[in-house]
Amino acid sequence: MSGLVGIGVGPGDPELVTLKAARLIGELPVLAHIGADGRASRARRIVADLIPPGIVELTADMPMRCAPQAAHPVYDNLADRIAAEIGKGRAVGFLCEGDPLLYGSFVAILDRLGSHVPVTVVPGITSVAAAAARTRHVLSSRDEVVTILPATAGTDRLEAALAAADSVALLKVGRHLPRIRALLEKAGLAAQAQVVTELGSPSESIQPLAKLEDERLPYFALILARRPRVSR
Amino acid sequence: MSGLVGIGVGPGDPELVTLKAARLIGELPVLAHIGADGRASRARRIVADLIPPGIVELTADMPMRCAPQAAHPVYDNLADRIAAEIGKGRAVGFLCEGDPLLYGSFVAILDRLGSHVPVTVVPGITSVAAAAARTRHVLSSRDEVVTILPATAGTDRLEAALAAADSVALLKVGRHLPRIRALLEKAGLAAQAQVVTELGSPSESIQPLAKLEDERLPYFALILARRPRVSR
Repeated sequence: MSGLVGIGVGPGDPELVTLKAARLIGELPVLAHIGADGRASRARRIVADLIPPGIVELTADMPMRCAPQAAHPVYDNLADRIAAEIGKGRAVGFLCEGDPLLYGSFVAILDRLGSHVPVTVVPGITSVAAAAARTRHVLSSRDEVVTILPATAGTDRLEAALAAADSVALLKVGRHLPRIRALLEKAGLAAQAQVVTELGSPSESIQPLAKLEDERLPYFALILARRPRVSR
Repeated sequence: MSGLVGIGVGPGDPELVTLKAARLIGELPVLAHIGADGRASRARRIVADLIPPGIVELTADMPMRCAPQAAHPVYDNLADRIAAEIGKGRAVGFLCEGDPLLYGSFVAILDRLGSHVPVTVVPGITSVAAAAARTRHVLSSRDEVVTILPATAGTDRLEAALAAADSVALLKVGRHLPRIRALLEKAGLAAQAQVVTELGSPSESIQPLAKLEDERLPYFALILARRPRVSR
């Protein structure tokens, strides 16, 4: 193993890490991760017990709730430090919550280094799969169409995507709940929708959308909904 | 742990099994799995090294390429045997390739037993995440909409879903390649599409769609495509 290794560490449960990720975290000489607003990386916390003492760790601190441009120098700087380690012949594992290639911060590092260094990616369990498992929510069977949508996307795009899907997972619901509720109702997807917040933490909450007031949800709140079978 | 435990064992690589799945496979007194056309279950083969000797195994044989109704009695019979074991106080793990709730055969068992026995689900790495990792294909970043579509779905539904997505994974491409190619071209998604077959096996193949003739692909062939950034 050499170069950059994007490692998905899953949604939060330390047992939802793959054998491959666990092995590589124990073997790689350098691990990189990104914290937010001065707090240690959540990806690192998930696998803390697997990290051997004394290895090199490269960290970056991402200011949250800022303009997207403010992230660029943070990624640039971390990518430079990762490239320097790889230049010394050391493979660098980049720890990433969920799956590295599905809305992962790894994508920003891949964009910067993918043309210059060898890249390996270890897939991870997504928050969508974990939330579905936790709620025993069927994502799809047979020829159903499944769509993952960030609630932050534009209303027209969400509307078209919801209309075309049999089953949806809406991410980053946060302050968008009233708008998302209206869109799910219009698409005929609201009836059985479930809202999952703080998955796997002590403050985890799972509620039917129908029973939830239009409050502001945590940024990482997620809604799962599937079209009733009778209409298919 | 009691009742029915749906266990995702991932896409094929024995290292892409989660620590939780590996632990439960080693602990549960009964494991159930479904083979096809007389061949042993692929899910079982993935985790064969983790199965302790001497446990009870419940198997079923699914005739492939038959009318969907032919599957019903096979599922009914297996569900009955699983329920009988659970009735004796034994937890039963159901081994499922990929993720149990995303096109998994587990859904058929859950439909039959979900109202009668306690159910736990362990999510698994999907073939979509594994194919993206293998090809270093970014599934999504920022507010991109990602859609998973079985190529077996109707043309109108595929067309609407492709038009509304920024990034797509088409499953079960098999004999549908010419139709899918035309739909991807119409949706502006064909240019960078990659075709992945036999992922992780010695006969694995990864090819740009543009370089592939309109041949019949294996049933589990998968296409990954993402809209070029300039048009977003």
